[in-house]
Amino acid sequence: MVEKRKPIHVLEAVNRVMTRLHTSGIEKIPLEEAGGRWLAEPVIADEAVPPFDRSPFDGFAVRSSDTTDASREHPVTLRVIETVGAGHIAGKVPGPGEAVRVMTGTIMPEGTDAIVMFELTKEAEDGSSMTISRSFASDDNVVKKGEEMLKGDEVLASGQRIHAGITAALATFGYAKVTVAKKPRVGVFATGTELLEPGDKLEPGKIRNSNAPMVVEQLKEAGAEPKYFGQLPDDFDHCYEQVTDVLGEVDALITTGGVSVGDFDFLPAIYEKLGAEVLFNKVAMRPGSVTTVAFKDEKPLFGLSGNPSACFVGFELFAAPWVKKAMGAGKPYLKQTKAVLGKSFPKPNPFTRFVRGHASFENGSHTVIPAGLDKSQVVTSLALSNALIVLPGGTRGFEAGDEVDVFLLRGDGGSAFYEPVKERRT
Amino acid sequence: MVEKRKPIHVLEAVNRVMTRLHTSGIEKIPLEEAGGRWLAEPVIADEAVPPFDRSPFDGFAVRSSDTTDASREHPVTLRVIETVGAGHIAGKVPGPGEAVRVMTGTIMPEGTDAIVMFELTKEAEDGSSMTISRSFASDDNVVKKGEEMLKGDEVLASGQRIHAGITAALATFGYAKVTVAKKPRVGVFATGTELLEPGDKLEPGKIRNSNAPMVVEQLKEAGAEPKYFGQLPDDFDHCYEQVTDVLGEVDALITTGGVSVGDFDFLPAIYEKLGAEVLFNKVAMRPGSVTTVAFKDEKPLFGLSGNPSACFVGFELFAAPWVKKAMGAGKPYLKQTKAVLGKSFPKPNPFTRFVRGHASFENGSHTVIPAGLDKSQVVTSLALSNALIVLPGGTRGFEAGDEVDVFLLRGDGGSAFYEPVKERRT
Repeated sequence: MVEKRKPIHVLEAVNRVMTRLHTSGIEKIPLEEAGGRWLAEPVIADEAVPPFDRSPFDGFAVRSSDTTDASREHPVTLRVIETVGAGHIAGKVPGPGEAVRVMTGTIMPEGTDAIVMFELTKEAEDGSSMTISRSFASDDNVVKKGEEMLKGDEVLASGQRIHAGITAALATFGYAKVTVAKKPRVGVFATGTELLEPGDKLEPGKIRNSNAPMVVEQLKEAGAEPKYFGQLPDDFDHCYEQVTDVLGEVDALITTGGVSVGDFDFLPAIYEKLGAEVLFNKVAMRPGSVTTVAFKDEKPLFGLSGNPSACFVGFELFAAPWVKKAMGAGKPYLKQTKAVLGKSFPKPNPFTRFVRGHASFENGSHTVIPAGLDKSQVVTSLALSNALIVLPGGTRGFEAGDEVDVFLLRGDGGSAFYEPVKERRT
Repeated sequence: MVEKRKPIHVLEAVNRVMTRLHTSGIEKIPLEEAGGRWLAEPVIADEAVPPFDRSPFDGFAVRSSDTTDASREHPVTLRVIETVGAGHIAGKVPGPGEAVRVMTGTIMPEGTDAIVMFELTKEAEDGSSMTISRSFASDDNVVKKGEEMLKGDEVLASGQRIHAGITAALATFGYAKVTVAKKPRVGVFATGTELLEPGDKLEPGKIRNSNAPMVVEQLKEAGAEPKYFGQLPDDFDHCYEQVTDVLGEVDALITTGGVSVGDFDFLPAIYEKLGAEVLFNKVAMRPGSVTTVAFKDEKPLFGLSGNPSACFVGFELFAAPWVKKAMGAGKPYLKQTKAVLGKSFPKPNPFTRFVRGHASFENGSHTVIPAGLDKSQVVTSLALSNALIVLPGGTRGFEAGDEVDVFLLRGDGGSAFYEPVKERRT
């Protein structure tokens, strides 16, 4: 007899998962391995920037007082007493009428207070002197110590995902090691006796397991450390045994399939026997209404649907933000934005629908088109999608030109929370 | 004496690099390692999808002719002769008045031609029979073999970057191994005697090397295999020796700094002594006008500026698309789109300027704000940027509200080419 489950709103379901967050602790890792992780603490300037007064050009460091009377009519010639490269310190202190040749980034030689770029000078053939035909004021072209940042300033807040630009800031302030959250280890089981692995030859009645490789890749994209444990057997006791066996090794467990009402859908009974707290087992959404999340000893058990699209959506809505928040992400949710629907989606649904879509941002306007409307695209709709179109439940469909909410997949950044999408029961 | 270099247009510079592409060949790698790589060949369906007629629900497979007279008033009871799970094949062939209990995904039992979902039936307590109160036509609720795709169909074109949705398609069609371009090995040298490594304590006159860690991370983001060789010495002969030493080990070489007109800027002389073909050594752009690209034996030598922003921009404009095209990317360029400038940028420049910016796509409109306008942001501007704002050269600046082109960093997708940005010499 078919079990009656009470559906809850999708945002309520997301909240139930996210308020139960458990993190796996922090660690210090080398800067060169930190790309893609999230800053677990703010970046603080260990020195002023720049750390000393310096030259922004290749040029001459001069005493500005020597140049006061320089003009095109009355050029002034200064003796060049030394050449100093960046990273070196001038050995001599120039007196009146003397200048130092410096390279970009060189610390200002003692006694000098302005920089004249090469292009504004005329150098003697032998390099012993140079002539200028205008005056310079004190501090002209000098980049002053601490001009950009003072020692102790907060350079970057925590919670940001590390990319090349952040790597540069970390390097500048001496973060040879970076404090980040540990990667959660997430186990994956597939269920379904119809499943073959991708390397297997097809047999009658069987299909290949695409959910497990997909979820493993989604876990990598979210930053977690996935571990695929293979397929659960078609027998309750062995299933239960395998699940309990691996729970000690992981911080979270994902199963694909086995949460519906079929005879071999063992997951509900496994959660019960484990004594896991089921947060929900029915969500008011399509696809993936049977998506179930339970917690056992602070470890989430994500029971995703066996339908590939439902599996994908369930992962992105529930598992991905859990992983990202556990990794320290300040914005763990998919980026939410508005777009214009490029094609009608006439099928109404009482539940909120998450439609695989392709969003394009061309010439300043956003359009999103459902992927997989054509039969030939059903298989490839996930491959072609870069967004989920959020179509709230109601009694009528949506027309081309309607403004809709979209969640962007794989985009830079993300959202700190989801905005509720207004229902349209018209 | 300062060398005179002739600047070329930035798109011309990009083209000179991209028409000289050398690839490092292809390889077959396991599906679970293919995320982030690009498909080097199209994905072809090795079987029809679905590979057989199947049930889309948990329900009963029936002979539609048995149901012709079923109605609420005259329900029809069918004997359930067997239960078949997905992946299994029915052992019996139902005769008139008989049905088979099937799970989602089960191959249609011989002799049956319609599926009735559980919810529309009333099962006997002992499961020996079930009753239905409406008729079903042949093929009702049957997913037909090949409905979504036929054997031999092209599932996905080559040139796409592999993400979880594409992994699912690859798994479905038995791609346990995936053909991809080999990762180019790209060497990185930093130049500049003022440079300390991130783990070093600051010394007077020195700054930390942020360019090399940044470029290494940019290479990883673009998909290449970076190798940092350390800092080049402050001496021409040793520099030359080190460059020639590593050239055999890499497919491309990046240097940061040393391409300008300072006394220790050895790269131009190194290119000359190597007999490398210099494609350009001056680009009509800011920052990074001294960016130089040369080719030696089909290997590009990217001479990026030592200024961090110029280094970053030079990498994204010239090195990243080369890497991505070598990796087989169909869209190797940064995604180009339009946005509204959120803050004025009054400084005019004769050269096209690439301004680090932060683009936000909120509520259906794009705004981009230059990062680093405040002094305190200069150091962190790269960390805060997700876009490069393209401001064409001209005699006046840009005002808030102007529509501008932007290149999006780290975004999903990319462009197949850059659209020329109209100059505005007003």
